[in-house]
Amino acid sequence: MSLGLVFLSEVFGTMMLTLLGCGVVANVALKGTKGNAGGFHLVNWGWGLAVMAGVFVAAKSGAHLNPAVTLGIVSSGAKEFVPGIPVDAASIFTYFGGELVGAFIGAVVCWLAYKQHFDEEPLAASKLAVFSTGPALRSYGWNVVTEIIGTFVLVFVILMFGKSAASLGPLPVALLVVGIGASLGGPTGYAINPARDVGPRIAHALLPIKGKGSSDWAYSWVPIVGPIIGGVLGGLMSQWVPIVVK
Amino acid sequence: MSLGLVFLSEVFGTMMLTLLGCGVVANVALKGTKGNAGGFHLVNWGWGLAVMAGVFVAAKSGAHLNPAVTLGIVSSGAKEFVPGIPVDAASIFTYFGGELVGAFIGAVVCWLAYKQHFDEEPLAASKLAVFSTGPALRSYGWNVVTEIIGTFVLVFVILMFGKSAASLGPLPVALLVVGIGASLGGPTGYAINPARDVGPRIAHALLPIKGKGSSDWAYSWVPIVGPIIGGVLGGLMSQWVPIVVK
Amino acid sequence: MSLGLVFLSEVFGTMMLTLLGCGVVANVALKGTKGNAGGFHLVNWGWGLAVMAGVFVAAKSGAHLNPAVTLGIVSSGAKEFVPGIPVDAASIFTYFGGELVGAFIGAVVCWLAYKQHFDEEPLAASKLAVFSTGPALRSYGWNVVTEIIGTFVLVFVILMFGKSAASLGPLPVALLVVGIGASLGGPTGYAINPARDVGPRIAHALLPIKGKGSSDWAYSWVPIVGPIIGGVLGGLMSQWVPIVVK
Amino acid sequence: MSLGLVFLSEVFGTMMLTLLGCGVVANVALKGTKGNAGGFHLVNWGWGLAVMAGVFVAAKSGAHLNPAVTLGIVSSGAKEFVPGIPVDAASIFTYFGGELVGAFIGAVVCWLAYKQHFDEEPLAASKLAVFSTGPALRSYGWNVVTEIIGTFVLVFVILMFGKSAASLGPLPVALLVVGIGASLGGPTGYAINPARDVGPRIAHALLPIKGKGSSDWAYSWVPIVGPIIGGVLGGLMSQWVPIVVK
Repeated sequence: MSLGLVFLSEVFGTMMLTLLGCGVVANVALKGTKGNAGGFHLVNWGWGLAVMAGVFVAAKSGAHLNPAVTLGIVSSGAKEFVPGIPVDAASIFTYFGGELVGAFIGAVVCWLAYKQHFDEEPLAASKLAVFSTGPALRSYGWNVVTEIIGTFVLVFVILMFGKSAASLGPLPVALLVVGIGASLGGPTGYAINPARDVGPRIAHALLPIKGKGSSDWAYSWVPIVGPIIGGVLGGLMSQWVPIVVK
Repeated sequence: MSLGLVFLSEVFGTMMLTLLGCGVVANVALKGTKGNAGGFHLVNWGWGLAVMAGVFVAAKSGAHLNPAVTLGIVSSGAKEFVPGIPVDAASIFTYFGGELVGAFIGAVVCWLAYKQHFDEEPLAASKLAVFSTGPALRSYGWNVVTEIIGTFVLVFVILMFGKSAASLGPLPVALLVVGIGASLGGPTGYAINPARDVGPRIAHALLPIKGKGSSDWAYSWVPIVGPIIGGVLGGLMSQWVPIVVK
Repeated sequence: MSLGLVFLSEVFGTMMLTLLGCGVVANVALKGTKGNAGGFHLVNWGWGLAVMAGVFVAAKSGAHLNPAVTLGIVSSGAKEFVPGIPVDAASIFTYFGGELVGAFIGAVVCWLAYKQHFDEEPLAASKLAVFSTGPALRSYGWNVVTEIIGTFVLVFVILMFGKSAASLGPLPVALLVVGIGASLGGPTGYAINPARDVGPRIAHALLPIKGKGSSDWAYSWVPIVGPIIGGVLGGLMSQWVPIVVK
Repeated sequence: MSLGLVFLSEVFGTMMLTLLGCGVVANVALKGTKGNAGGFHLVNWGWGLAVMAGVFVAAKSGAHLNPAVTLGIVSSGAKEFVPGIPVDAASIFTYFGGELVGAFIGAVVCWLAYKQHFDEEPLAASKLAVFSTGPALRSYGWNVVTEIIGTFVLVFVILMFGKSAASLGPLPVALLVVGIGASLGGPTGYAINPARDVGPRIAHALLPIKGKGSSDWAYSWVPIVGPIIGGVLGGLMSQWVPIVVK
């Protein structure tokens, strides 16, 4: 296993994640789609199964797909990410890079799949919602709290049984994300993943989307900082609390 | 395995259970969330996957997460809860303590995650519904009957194939809870777990929730007594009926 | 394994099936429940997971839970139902008896769980719908056709990989029933099981349900004859078509 | 394993696929069914579990059920489809034939199951929607793009872990299809399978459906060409990208 392969694996996996994840929001939020107004439960399953697809695709690199998971594994005290890939600065930034690039590409492909519906949709806010999360009620402090809690659950449960999402398995991780979305997604739309939020936000800023409006950079630090804190907490707890099953 | 570890394991597992379980009700019931009015089916999946997360987290102690399960295992005639933890008064109360403390903490964390939406929500009844169950039609006798039946199904099915939820596995238990909720949750909101109900009810009573109203202590014995009877019945049946697969 | 144990196993398993299956219809159809008007998808999951619970509970006897499955296994040319239980008239009628008695008991317990909501519900048709199936458009010939097709799918898929629902496994069978309900349940409400329909119909006729109206015995032969034909066809096909994986 | 058996296996599997898949659309789209207006999420699960049933039934031949999967496996560089069946023109056309014939038969049986509701439904467009896909917004170029992307996801993920849907397993493939439908089905109704679309379209053209209107042959090439391109791309990527797990 080489760092180049880790990069490629995370690019493809995170591309699947945001292609399918942003896709379900496009289906529910944009005008004239067959799933229009399909409800929050449809969004939860769409994102959960997006994670399942991503975990299948990026299995070789452990399927982080998420800088908060990468940092959670680091803070759990692991020595290797996958056999042959030690936990060091080079590999951490390789994971980060693959996650960010993949998340960006997936959002671009999602825009292509829903191109006509982006053109038809009159509301700029609905277009941005396809790409990135935003708060139901804006209050940066409480929004960060919600993102910390959601990401803590994700990383702590993943680290209970394995060293990564791939070792827990695609289906349990998918269901876990369905559950976190259903239960903790109400206030902020559960980014719980900095790459999933900022990669598509960059795509939103760069793509020639008709009538797209602001990319809301003022909020963009919340789904970065919250998940990083939550992921590190999840990793530390999995190291300190003696109930973790390895 | 020590009793301290059992306690810690049940605290973390039951915390996950009520954090995610109360969370999905908050998402559906409180004003301004992204899942507002998301429907009963969303609540069923949220609670089911909350149980899945809890079973993962508390696997080391058998993942009771529920005094009715603990008592069901006792009444099934088991000699040990997990290897090294005999079925005796000390261990039973250790399980009870961990379940209650964990359920309380999870509800507090859920309140933090949805803090702003608790502040916005005008109805006190919707706020209490996030924490604890209440009857659709109040009639203590029939409400107890419904809780007995639901908990009997839970405990009897779990004890068919294993000694605990952890040995049946997180996914089957999650789906079982989705099913019990969908099918038997209509009259009382399926507590089927005394700790899940009374722990958050204590949190509701103690937390400084804006405009919170009564904690409805008059009803609180129903989701304690009903599940205990149902769990003991499930355990006894699993001992007496020769169809149980061990 | 004795015939008495087969009987007991099928009684308990089919009781779980109709308790949870009739329960989800009660939750959706009766006045004042928490799942009222929860939709067809909720009903599909409720029935599918009812089957899952039943398959867990009746695993020792192969978890037929359904005379159409019993007859499908017979027509597939099997020599034994489970080790020690030969396919003969005595065992076939033991399965039938257990299935019918269990289906009856489950419906009675469901009525107890939803007693107050039966009292509140004004429409007799909604009360009967909890117990037994009825056609969306009454035309006995076409209704039989739909039941034949649905039951054929159930029995043929089950017999592809095993000798019974228990050997295919609780989760795949549950999902199969969710799928048959979603896809083929539209015209007749997918009895696909004579015991599931006639056992609760007898309960409906006997129980002192307030304002219950007719038990619609005129239709009752459809969900008996259709599933029997479909099950036998499924069994014969699994014997004759060389693609079945054993 | 003979080519005749491959043909039979794919006929039965694809018949299950379109019987259940077209069935869920009939349930949601046609007048007077019990699942009428049941929503896009119900359709997603119906199609996903239709694939699950088809993969169970056609396991012996690898459960392609889809010419795009067959071509994806060819372009992945595989030497055999299943043991004893080399990748050559004869076997490719055997798979195609079985897939097309099965898809046609399944649609006919679905029409029988919903015969009365086809008679009652006033809109010709709703009747065609049961059989074949159509675009939310008609623009052949963009519609092809969407079908390419959806089919690429399907084939690439399937080929990550195995040589066919059967080796990935019925449940993961089912969930993958639920996810692709939820996320990428909004613009075109996710044919992602030429046989699934053209087989039922032929059935629509030939069957004596009351008031059926046009079979929309003008669109019919889109769900053939798009999935073929997407499937071949998925197969090529699985050969070239070194992250695929075999």
